[in-house]
Amino acid sequence: MEFDLATGIAVLERTPASLRALLEGLSPQWVDATEGPETWSPYVVVGHLIHGERTDWIPRARIILEQGPDRRFAPFDRTAQYRESRGRSLAALLEEFARLRADNLATLAGWRLTEKQLALLGEHPALGPVTLRQLLATWVVHDLGHVAQVVRVMSKQYRDEVGPWREYLPVLNR
Amino acid sequence: MEFDLATGIAVLERTPASLRALLEGLSPQWVDATEGPETWSPYVVVGHLIHGERTDWIPRARIILEQGPDRRFAPFDRTAQYRESRGRSLAALLEEFARLRADNLATLAGWRLTEKQLALLGEHPALGPVTLRQLLATWVVHDLGHVAQVVRVMSKQYRDEVGPWREYLPVLNR
Repeated sequence: MEFDLATGIAVLERTPASLRALLEGLSPQWVDATEGPETWSPYVVVGHLIHGERTDWIPRARIILEQGPDRRFAPFDRTAQYRESRGRSLAALLEEFARLRADNLATLAGWRLTEKQLALLGEHPALGPVTLRQLLATWVVHDLGHVAQVVRVMSKQYRDEVGPWREYLPVLNR
Repeated sequence: MEFDLATGIAVLERTPASLRALLEGLSPQWVDATEGPETWSPYVVVGHLIHGERTDWIPRARIILEQGPDRRFAPFDRTAQYRESRGRSLAALLEEFARLRADNLATLAGWRLTEKQLALLGEHPALGPVTLRQLLATWVVHDLGHVAQVVRVMSKQYRDEVGPWREYLPVLNR
């Protein structure tokens, strides 16, 4: 399936409501659960998605669209959410994520990107040259991957509770 | 984390809205996407979850609770949804899943299960003796595993569209 704006945006615009439906109102047993030391809880994932809305997708798209002399992206801070989410409720984070995502999708729609613009290049600090189309497709997959992570982390909390069914539940063994 | 009814039900009651938020209104490109021959699309997964509401979780729990002479579960039909979903819209399936799930959770709540009942045994046709507690914990993990599957299947549609980012997106390589 080829990336196109309408199809990609259809996923991006659903993610905040999906996470809210999955997580809002759940107890800390679920929301703060992890897969072990140094792994992320659903709460941490939502903070990470917020940081991405602020510093990753749209700012990087701007760097590509501007085609200035330096098209290298700032490295993404994968631990910012530990600082930025501190003391905030999950409900507040879900609300902020929804607001930032809506704003960013309005910005994206306002650009009325052409195929030619989608082929413009930026430079990823580790991966090298990447197109705007690849950046936007990655935004979509990044959302879906983190939803997969959230439900995987939750499912593992019952790894020992399912008894012999474990062999039928591949999500427990990833 | 130990299984308890309130914590498990908190997940079970959210799944219909989570799937609706993720999927409702998406184009067939997403909803009918698969990971290749013999693999399931999001549409097929929702049909499978409906069949589980009808024939798996609550019917098996009843067999355990009744403690009759034959406590062996009927094997689950993993292809029923191809027959049962035929000709139906995804919106109709999502609606039916929500209704059946709400009914089943009302049944479960009405039982006011005790710890002693949760320890009662049934017999899985392939796995052997299983407790009611394990059955209910499996219901939760089964939901979460299928949500993980839905977003994984969707993400893979852009596997080639993300370019060099693929190595940062483990969901694409499962």
